[in-house]
Amino acid sequence: CKQCRQQLSLCPTCRGSLTPNIRNLAMEKVASAVLFPCKYATTGCSLTLHHTEKPKHEAICEYRPYSCPCPGTSCDWEGSLEAVMSHLMHAHKSITTLQGEDIIFLATDINLPGAVDWVMMQSCFGHHFMLVLKKQEKCEGHQQFFATVLLIGTRKQAENFQYRLELHGSCHRLTWEASPCSIHDSVSVAISNSNCLVFDTATAHLFADNGNLGINVTISMCCP
Amino acid sequence: CKQCRQQLSLCPTCRGSLTPNIRNLAMEKVASAVLFPCKYATTGCSLTLHHTEKPKHEAICEYRPYSCPCPGTSCDWEGSLEAVMSHLMHAHKSITTLQGEDIIFLATDINLPGAVDWVMMQSCFGHHFMLVLKKQEKCEGHQQFFATVLLIGTRKQAENFQYRLELHGSCHRLTWEASPCSIHDSVSVAISNSNCLVFDTATAHLFADNGNLGINVTISMCCP
Repeated sequence: CKQCRQQLSLCPTCRGSLTPNIRNLAMEKVASAVLFPCKYATTGCSLTLHHTEKPKHEAICEYRPYSCPCPGTSCDWEGSLEAVMSHLMHAHKSITTLQGEDIIFLATDINLPGAVDWVMMQSCFGHHFMLVLKKQEKCEGHQQFFATVLLIGTRKQAENFQYRLELHGSCHRLTWEASPCSIHDSVSVAISNSNCLVFDTATAHLFADNGNLGINVTISMCCP
Repeated sequence: CKQCRQQLSLCPTCRGSLTPNIRNLAMEKVASAVLFPCKYATTGCSLTLHHTEKPKHEAICEYRPYSCPCPGTSCDWEGSLEAVMSHLMHAHKSITTLQGEDIIFLATDINLPGAVDWVMMQSCFGHHFMLVLKKQEKCEGHQQFFATVLLIGTRKQAENFQYRLELHGSCHRLTWEASPCSIHDSVSVAISNSNCLVFDTATAHLFADNGNLGINVTISMCCP
């Protein structure tokens, strides 16, 4: 196997040199004729795939474990969807939860220097949603804010919801409406797909009051 | 005066050296006791100001002439507000005008490289509005779009209106509402004040169809 191979420089059978690596085309041919089960078969995935397609599928397999959805922390927790909420409540106690479809997500001290994340939970329709505001420098010297909503649920469940983020000042209003991502995709996936409200520091200041930014968050169910 | 002074190196009266420049504190004292009329007195400004405040006021005086509002052109036309529309119709014939409070501003080929401006006119409530979409690189390697609406009218008149810009795709919607600027302030003032909808190239692609971006523009009158 891969681990043993690294410790060998001679063939254990014929004592011939094993350097350079020599492809075993015959065995590759056999392998490409065989379908392998996904490594998450034990948690429910029934797919079988060619060895060339396995890694790509396993990276997004819906039966893979859920990672801790908290952005900006180095938490390496993994577990089932059912265990995510209790993990958050025990390991990330500082996250506030608000009840209701229509709440205000208050991000305090948006002028804090460097990359900062603001996180809170919203609970409605029998589900928990994670609200995230991220400040980061995508290109040097130019800080931007990224706001998005993720469902603590599967990708399929997320399709049933819509969210709206609204910033409003005395004379301006900025609104973003979209479907939430599932926490099975991470915040960084939502950001890199532009599936979020993006705004500059100058726009943030237009809406902030004393360095605090209130974002109106409304969650609704999609019409079937 | 300033022009003559530059041609003199000796005092025309006593032939003494005029270098270095010597402040005439006595005359400065006299000047600061006198109020001067604004240089736009002949077009209606009745303000009189201390010489130290004159340049600042004259840069924003509401009686100063209007410049050509077209962004990205090197047109150096100046004239009265009443003459702006006929200037645009004669000198910038390629600008389309649409009638109505609710129109679609279609920006074609948003993938064109470099800094690009899209401009059109919207006519409603007996006024003309200029719709501008600007693509530019505020920070290196990071292009952004800036969309705004300006009234062909005074700053005072602009306060009576609101505009809404809306981008919508199959699953996303981005909306911006604000009061239009007057063309007496330029597009670059609106952009530097963040009085505009700002979005990244990635967001533009989310809403664009085949490289063309449709922006719904709705203009309304403010409730008194």
